[in-house]
Amino acid sequence: MSATPSAQYSLTIRVEIANRPGMLGRVAGAIGDAGGVIGAVDLVEVGDRELLRDITVDVADPTHWDAVVAAVDGLDGARVVDTTDRTFLLHVGGKIELHNKSPLRTRDDLSMAYTPGVARVCTAIAEDRDKAFQYTIKRNTVAVVSDGTAVLGLGDIGPEAAMPVMEGKAMLFKEFAGVDAFPICLDTKDTDEIVDTVRRIAPAFGGINLEDISAPRCFEIEERLKAALDIPVFHDDQHGTAVVVLAALLNACRLTGRELSGLRVLVTGLGAAGVAVTKILMEAGVRDIVGADSRGLVSTERADYLDGSMNAVKRWYAEMTNPERLTGPPAGALEGRDLFIGLSGARIFAADALAAMAPDAMVFAMANPNPEVAPEEAARHARIIATGRSDYPNQINNVLAFPGIFRGALDVRAEEITEPMKMAAARAIADILGDGELREDYIIPSVFNRDVAPAVAAAVSEEARSSGAAQAGQGTIGFAAIDTEHMRAS
Amino acid sequence: MSATPSAQYSLTIRVEIANRPGMLGRVAGAIGDAGGVIGAVDLVEVGDRELLRDITVDVADPTHWDAVVAAVDGLDGARVVDTTDRTFLLHVGGKIELHNKSPLRTRDDLSMAYTPGVARVCTAIAEDRDKAFQYTIKRNTVAVVSDGTAVLGLGDIGPEAAMPVMEGKAMLFKEFAGVDAFPICLDTKDTDEIVDTVRRIAPAFGGINLEDISAPRCFEIEERLKAALDIPVFHDDQHGTAVVVLAALLNACRLTGRELSGLRVLVTGLGAAGVAVTKILMEAGVRDIVGADSRGLVSTERADYLDGSMNAVKRWYAEMTNPERLTGPPAGALEGRDLFIGLSGARIFAADALAAMAPDAMVFAMANPNPEVAPEEAARHARIIATGRSDYPNQINNVLAFPGIFRGALDVRAEEITEPMKMAAARAIADILGDGELREDYIIPSVFNRDVAPAVAAAVSEEARSSGAAQAGQGTIGFAAIDTEHMRAS
Repeated sequence: MSATPSAQYSLTIRVEIANRPGMLGRVAGAIGDAGGVIGAVDLVEVGDRELLRDITVDVADPTHWDAVVAAVDGLDGARVVDTTDRTFLLHVGGKIELHNKSPLRTRDDLSMAYTPGVARVCTAIAEDRDKAFQYTIKRNTVAVVSDGTAVLGLGDIGPEAAMPVMEGKAMLFKEFAGVDAFPICLDTKDTDEIVDTVRRIAPAFGGINLEDISAPRCFEIEERLKAALDIPVFHDDQHGTAVVVLAALLNACRLTGRELSGLRVLVTGLGAAGVAVTKILMEAGVRDIVGADSRGLVSTERADYLDGSMNAVKRWYAEMTNPERLTGPPAGALEGRDLFIGLSGARIFAADALAAMAPDAMVFAMANPNPEVAPEEAARHARIIATGRSDYPNQINNVLAFPGIFRGALDVRAEEITEPMKMAAARAIADILGDGELREDYIIPSVFNRDVAPAVAAAVSEEARSSGAAQAGQGTIGFAAIDTEHMRAS
Repeated sequence: MSATPSAQYSLTIRVEIANRPGMLGRVAGAIGDAGGVIGAVDLVEVGDRELLRDITVDVADPTHWDAVVAAVDGLDGARVVDTTDRTFLLHVGGKIELHNKSPLRTRDDLSMAYTPGVARVCTAIAEDRDKAFQYTIKRNTVAVVSDGTAVLGLGDIGPEAAMPVMEGKAMLFKEFAGVDAFPICLDTKDTDEIVDTVRRIAPAFGGINLEDISAPRCFEIEERLKAALDIPVFHDDQHGTAVVVLAALLNACRLTGRELSGLRVLVTGLGAAGVAVTKILMEAGVRDIVGADSRGLVSTERADYLDGSMNAVKRWYAEMTNPERLTGPPAGALEGRDLFIGLSGARIFAADALAAMAPDAMVFAMANPNPEVAPEEAARHARIIATGRSDYPNQINNVLAFPGIFRGALDVRAEEITEPMKMAAARAIADILGDGELREDYIIPSVFNRDVAPAVAAAVSEEARSSGAAQAGQGTIGFAAIDTEHMRAS
């Protein structure tokens, strides 16, 4: 894990400090000497002989935490009363809640929002199911669905333990795109059961965001749900990652003066993200891609392809990529490659292997928290380096894509999120950075750049409209877009 | 439907009125003459020759609506520009939305609420699934589940059309008890599929409120879900109704000086509500109950009982009630009855049949919108009359029960809502009215009485604690109740 103090390990230390000059300075000094980074200092209570203070400190890990607390407690005139883990505190009771959009305080309110008035709205929808998009939350609500089998780097931790991630995802949907998202964590890992369950709960939702479902089940689940439902189904681990990687690559090529069609690419890690990244690069015109899984480069020459034991997704991969039919460990394919994309979550070769890459090499090492190649070491061999981490330049983060993509799809009631819509999203993200802004360490906008989601939404809805994927003709679902039939007296 | 103007048919008329003295009075007069009830009058725009105004008017039904608009439009110097149905307007985009409980504006926010900090919270839950009640929305979130088969008086209108009712229910949960409720409308009517689906989505929820699922499937679905899940499962159409009927009856008996054990009761309509009401009355000590369905009084002498074609729930009913084995139409059982409970949704006998009832008769005619007996006609024969309608005294409305029941159950993490918990809820509702307040037309508190839900919650959680149904020992799930293991440095 990170050795740098960060907010993920932020604690509030409640400390009783002797009320005499210079004491706070000594406490702060002790924290600093122990390597803690002080945020806020608050006064809780003033006594004659003691002051009670809350001091917020970022530390590097739990061991460091103990050391900082011990350093304060060891001071003459200071006593640690309590400590609070701010990350856990933030999670108490969950991170999202429901709100009513109108008050419910009078009998008139009740007779419009509930019985008896609500019956007329129900009847209107029963007569035309499509009106659910006008008169229910379906218009703006996405289900964030997971079975908890591939959560972050933690693996199969189960549906309850996946909830904090799905709630966090829902927060990002709301914060960046105003989309109402609700976590659905499933107590089953069976492909058929997942498909059936999501299909049956779909009436309340305008879109389905699949999340942290392990490969290869995730491919089949997404395909079957797309076929079964008339609302967008989007597996973010695949397509969100693919869109942001393509956005970064478009700008990297713009900066280095390259064409996608001439690139030679190596991808390591062929889970959900690796396969989807490969597909979007091919869609965008890249012709020479070779991929590696834990057994090495995937090729039609490999033993498990030849003996038929390779799964369907990998077989597709072997047949559609690797024109030279390379085999062996991934490092062997680095010779003359323009781009290395790491999605494998491990240090798979020594950094110096990158020396074999083409001039102006590009390295996207996205394993989290430990990239496939440490950026410091990759810097000797690559011109452009991107990672999945927030503490290095060029963070490739899905939050640049999924809020705007769903916003755009919901706005025009797209029935699906097509390949051209994903391409449009990638271009929109890339285009946020003007030619004058592009630099080796700035090929992708910050996750907090508030221009991104609206630009992505506009590009996605425009693409959906022009290609006929949109169900609503209007540019936005504002008041002007609603059907007025039931609003009129006659 | 109602012939009285009400907010369920509330329209806003945008009208251009000549800018000369007395014109607004003439418009208002025309609306009044047509029978419309004016709410607000707003000025939208002032021109030299015309004023643009929005006038909010309650009408009785759509035909009346046309008449009111025509009356305004027919005036010299007035022109209707537009009309808006306020009930539909209130429903545009749905009635509930998600909110984030903490901001997500900085990298530190993101690293605590999402990656990388969230991983520690996930790990804590993976190690102890029970911690989902502390660190996720499960603690305060209820699923409002329907298959859309028995919605209001509308019947089987499907899952999309049921959404406005379920959203309204979610609003009531939030407004009256601070419970976060989310609508899950299911695209299946199959009992097995409903049970499986709810079981699989349960990890996100701390309770399941079943709603508007038709009988007899609702009985089996509830029983199987109760057995499968370790969170409360509560079919509101059954138990919410039963609790409020019992509350009203407790006060009616208090007022008329009767004991439950001596009552003779007739129930018409043996769907979800009728069966549950019968059960709670028996639980409360009532011994003589006879019930009727559309084929008449249910008895072990009836042909469909004898030939084995009666369903399991009705067989139970036939065996456990009707000690005199009465048969025939329901009116035949009114002789000497103390209480008539109508849950059948139709005028099943003439009001004068009530003349046969015992002195101080009680009539709970709860069909909506048309009670089994019109209260005006029943008044000749009954001392106490209650209905399901808001425009008569003594409204028996589930909203008095379900918000407080779930609040109480969630507060102590009850694994189920037991019969004693429902009884406690009924007594708490009844006890809101002091002896000095009780009157023939005031045996049940108003749905807007803000004392009800907290009183119900307290009674339910106290009962759960004392009987061992509670998982959490604390009186409320406040900050003091949370586990501090992960909050501490060591």
